Amino acid sequence: MTQERVSENAAIRLSLYLRYLRDIREEARISSEQLAEALGTSAARIRKDLSYFGQFGTPSKGYIAGKLRHQIEKALGLDRVWPIALVGVGKLGRALLDNLISEKSRFRIRAGFDVNPDKIGRRIAGVKVYHPYQMPKIIRNEKIPIGMITAPAEAAQESADLLVISGIKGILNFSPTRVVVPSYVRSKNVDFTSQLEVMPYYIVNDRDLRRAAQD
Amino acid sequence: MTQERVSENAAIRLSLYLRYLRDIREEARISSEQLAEALGTSAARIRKDLSYFGQFGTPSKGYIAGKLRHQIEKALGLDRVWPIALVGVGKLGRALLDNLISEKSRFRIRAGFDVNPDKIGRRIAGVKVYHPYQMPKIIRNEKIPIGMITAPAEAAQESADLLVISGIKGILNFSPTRVVVPSYVRSKNVDFTSQLEVMPYYIVNDRDLRRAAQD
Repeated sequence: MTQERVSENAAIRLSLYLRYLRDIREEARISSEQLAEALGTSAARIRKDLSYFGQFGTPSKGYIAGKLRHQIEKALGLDRVWPIALVGVGKLGRALLDNLISEKSRFRIRAGFDVNPDKIGRRIAGVKVYHPYQMPKIIRNEKIPIGMITAPAEAAQESADLLVISGIKGILNFSPTRVVVPSYVRSKNVDFTSQLEVMPYYIVNDRDLRRAAQD
Repeated sequence: MTQERVSENAAIRLSLYLRYLRDIREEARISSEQLAEALGTSAARIRKDLSYFGQFGTPSKGYIAGKLRHQIEKALGLDRVWPIALVGVGKLGRALLDNLISEKSRFRIRAGFDVNPDKIGRRIAGVKVYHPYQMPKIIRNEKIPIGMITAPAEAAQESADLLVISGIKGILNFSPTRVVVPSYVRSKNVDFTSQLEVMPYYIVNDRDLRRAAQD
């Protein structure tokens, strides 16, 4: 594998290829053209994305689906199980928890954290819930590298700070606010509130709609 | 307002400014510098973002929080209520439903659609649930412009197709697969599965971590 960091978009696309490959027969032979058609992209793009991560066979002969899947999983670090800490075991947190369980994914929620005394000490969907002050101890003991924040907006930054001092490596923030973390922690905002809030702007200002309204 | 489309990132940032402005006193005077500091960006960036959308007062004197908020809301089309159709009233759908209700947002889920016969005809969190075949009728009658897909991956494209033929203007897709829609429909994927799946790659390949491991 090359030592350069690949672009985030290339990595995201690789994860999409992966999802497609998981749905087809292990022994099926698939060309980059077929993969491109199924995913609505170009064969050149797929070959370029794959080349970032090393050699995945001879594109002209097509790839063996199962083999390509394993190679992409290995390239993305998905050939092992990744424990996750969930901060905020409310409705959104539980929905994500169920989502991850049902997907037979490589991610396991190992611990939940919540300030609600009714939840602390209980197991919710199989996951033990702790008070946030126990975060550094649990995360270090269980060697948890990834945290997901599903706490309310006003508790998001504090949750991120606690995750950082607990030694977390990556944070996925689902709360409707941005969090600031040191540069050595990877942090991504899954900000669906913003995505929703900008939709009216594009709907109102859509050129085709404007033209239609003038007709 | 300028007739050009602003960049998507500028619109997203505007929605973040908005969220901050909603939390402070209406009559507070705030400078672009203060806004920048609170949001971890630069004053120049904020002034540039605001200038896309028109005149919001004199930056040197600072903005009146409530007034700026109203102006941004108007610019983004958030000065009215936007009805939403929710396709897939499972756990994730319900979590989003609760999220939107509790946020006093400008979005109202007006109708839910699900194939589960136990849910059809019922009200879930105040929202009436219909069979997907009723989508064209309900969406047209209720003039619903935005659809949110929280159906399973295998039902996502079909859900999108139904929304499109029902005349929907924008789709927010939360299912773990991409959907293809005509260019006159705005569609955004809130793909947290991909965001999660690429995280291990960045954690494993982090240069600082590699360096630390060599020490």
